[in-house]
Amino acid sequence: MMMTLRALAFCAVALTAPLAAADEPRGTGALGIVIERTAGSVLIVDTVNRAVTGRVTGLGDLSHASAVFSPDGRYAYVFGRDGGLTKVDLLAGAIAKRTIQAGNAIGGAISDDGTLVAVSNYEPGGVRVFDAATLAPLADIAAIGANGKTSKTVGLVDLPGRRFAYALYDADEIWIADFSGGDAPKITKLTGIGRLPYDGNVTPDGRHYLVGLFGEDGVVHVDLWKQPLQARRILDNYGRGEERLPVYKMPHFEGWASAGDVMLIPAVGRHELIAVDRRSFREVGRIATSGQPIFAVARPDGRHAWVNFATPHNNMIDVVDTTTLSVVHRFAAGPAVLHMEFTPRGHEVWVSVRDANRVQVYDTSSFARKAELEAQHPSGIFFTARAGRIGQ
Amino acid sequence: MMMTLRALAFCAVALTAPLAAADEPRGTGALGIVIERTAGSVLIVDTVNRAVTGRVTGLGDLSHASAVFSPDGRYAYVFGRDGGLTKVDLLAGAIAKRTIQAGNAIGGAISDDGTLVAVSNYEPGGVRVFDAATLAPLADIAAIGANGKTSKTVGLVDLPGRRFAYALYDADEIWIADFSGGDAPKITKLTGIGRLPYDGNVTPDGRHYLVGLFGEDGVVHVDLWKQPLQARRILDNYGRGEERLPVYKMPHFEGWASAGDVMLIPAVGRHELIAVDRRSFREVGRIATSGQPIFAVARPDGRHAWVNFATPHNNMIDVVDTTTLSVVHRFAAGPAVLHMEFTPRGHEVWVSVRDANRVQVYDTSSFARKAELEAQHPSGIFFTARAGRIGQ
Repeated sequence: MMMTLRALAFCAVALTAPLAAADEPRGTGALGIVIERTAGSVLIVDTVNRAVTGRVTGLGDLSHASAVFSPDGRYAYVFGRDGGLTKVDLLAGAIAKRTIQAGNAIGGAISDDGTLVAVSNYEPGGVRVFDAATLAPLADIAAIGANGKTSKTVGLVDLPGRRFAYALYDADEIWIADFSGGDAPKITKLTGIGRLPYDGNVTPDGRHYLVGLFGEDGVVHVDLWKQPLQARRILDNYGRGEERLPVYKMPHFEGWASAGDVMLIPAVGRHELIAVDRRSFREVGRIATSGQPIFAVARPDGRHAWVNFATPHNNMIDVVDTTTLSVVHRFAAGPAVLHMEFTPRGHEVWVSVRDANRVQVYDTSSFARKAELEAQHPSGIFFTARAGRIGQ
Repeated sequence: MMMTLRALAFCAVALTAPLAAADEPRGTGALGIVIERTAGSVLIVDTVNRAVTGRVTGLGDLSHASAVFSPDGRYAYVFGRDGGLTKVDLLAGAIAKRTIQAGNAIGGAISDDGTLVAVSNYEPGGVRVFDAATLAPLADIAAIGANGKTSKTVGLVDLPGRRFAYALYDADEIWIADFSGGDAPKITKLTGIGRLPYDGNVTPDGRHYLVGLFGEDGVVHVDLWKQPLQARRILDNYGRGEERLPVYKMPHFEGWASAGDVMLIPAVGRHELIAVDRRSFREVGRIATSGQPIFAVARPDGRHAWVNFATPHNNMIDVVDTTTLSVVHRFAAGPAVLHMEFTPRGHEVWVSVRDANRVQVYDTSSFARKAELEAQHPSGIFFTARAGRIGQ
């Protein structure tokens, strides 16, 4: 009965929140989207009112979908698994443009000046680049490695200076595509970086590009501020000599928590986060967690990281103190916690609970649940504040 | 003649940039304001189009004015020197609310949840807190120190958890006002911190509060993550034994460049920046500059900091590489460079050149001047991306 009353109270909050009239001016700074993976739709949400303001349908296959935002915060670019690239108008609550740019894709990025949208493709491989205003194709960069293979690309991120970095899964390479001279990129290639790079990310300052290896035990690091660029191995054999657990899901690199003096990296196949010093890139500690970590997301101030897990522990969330490297709070949030997104200054966090068909909002100081919103099998949550971040 | 043609070309860019119709939906992510200090007005600007989209007048005395933004990016709160607090609607291009909250003020802050606007006052002293929606007064915190004096307050910043930090100029204290329990704050006081704190700022993670002293040679540091809070002195007597230059203007702490592993701190009265290690807070180097630094602003990636200067060198800008601690570019930007604001991901920087009555926009990679905009005696420039930052 308590549960029911509480659920009703939450519903009341969600349903009675004010919806702006379509013609009323509104700021876009507190807007965002929630991916509804099964329905192929996105919810438009307002983090100030903790409310859903609209639903946009017809975006295709949104499993593993992600999004970036235009500099003005009005448009989300949603990257679908089926190669669909959809530009969603958050103010109109409608699709502004849509193209099927490939057969199978795995995320994208937007250049620091907001003019280029790049998509990382599995099929046919390579990276395609589009005009952010019109979605007209501008560049098609085949990913043919030194081994002659056409490769899937992964870990695509924006870098300062109209550049993108990504890795070639089938060719063991990292490429930097530099569009500072126009729409024909200059490509820098790092070869033989290690077997089967499967995901990558860049630190919030755009300096350190890190790539995980599926074919070997280790992580690859490139200091983008040092010329000539070099790919060097860090954390070699970090699980060496210990019994491995089966890997239920490879952790995402998007969520490597870069916090204060350390980065928190999900260990592959283990119930652990690895703490790595941000200067030396050496391991400085481990944190025992509730399961195999998927995302370890730093709260914007970096004091805490929130961590979710692969099945069978995907109902749990651990909150880690990044100064003491200890779990300070641990709770069952609900069935299938898929993603977490903080409000820009970190006072609240939105959590997708897929199998409960809802998004739950928590106060990050008290850990109190402040609201919940109905959503159909929600997965990724993305707020417009990402528009202002390097490596968004 | 070359100059004239170039100036005309720049004007054409500024004047022909598209102005959105008042009723056309627009995102607020790329908007900002430029303070016109003499006229008591602000320009509303669009960083994507590098254009002025409106001017709002009637804001009173805007010398030393600063601004913060609502979480939705629609409203700027402008803090005037005369105690005026003006809420400007960037979409309507008009004043939404205005109050004269004190006789003499020196800046303000907005709580991390966007509900409280706090103002730091010289006359009558103390800090006043207002409802961000209505500007209705919520709290009036007198600043009476252990010495019994009513004090001016300085260095007011927001902290995570609905808190504010500030210093008491006449009482040598630092106070933390905690509104997490409601509109009646809990105050924590640090006394005897050093003579005449004159400005302060917090690092972008909200962890380290730093206060400059006017009455002594040194800086005060509080690690806000360590309980009990302690004010400790750093950089004691950093000019000891060397000949002093006359101090033309005290440097602003707003612009302490927190970049990579170091902070760059303007030395008082010297033609130098002091590089301080971000972990130990010890000096690790000095950088000779074109004049007495006023602002040292980190580009969002932290690789460079742009520095402006007190008279008679206030026409210059130095660009410092934060990894090598050397000046990599130095140029005369024009008469009376007062402020610099980077686009959120740092690809461009806007510079107020007061006595040329214009704002100049530079590419931060090539240092090329990309645009200029007419403005009447421009001073502070503030973009809405600040809404998403701790210590905005």
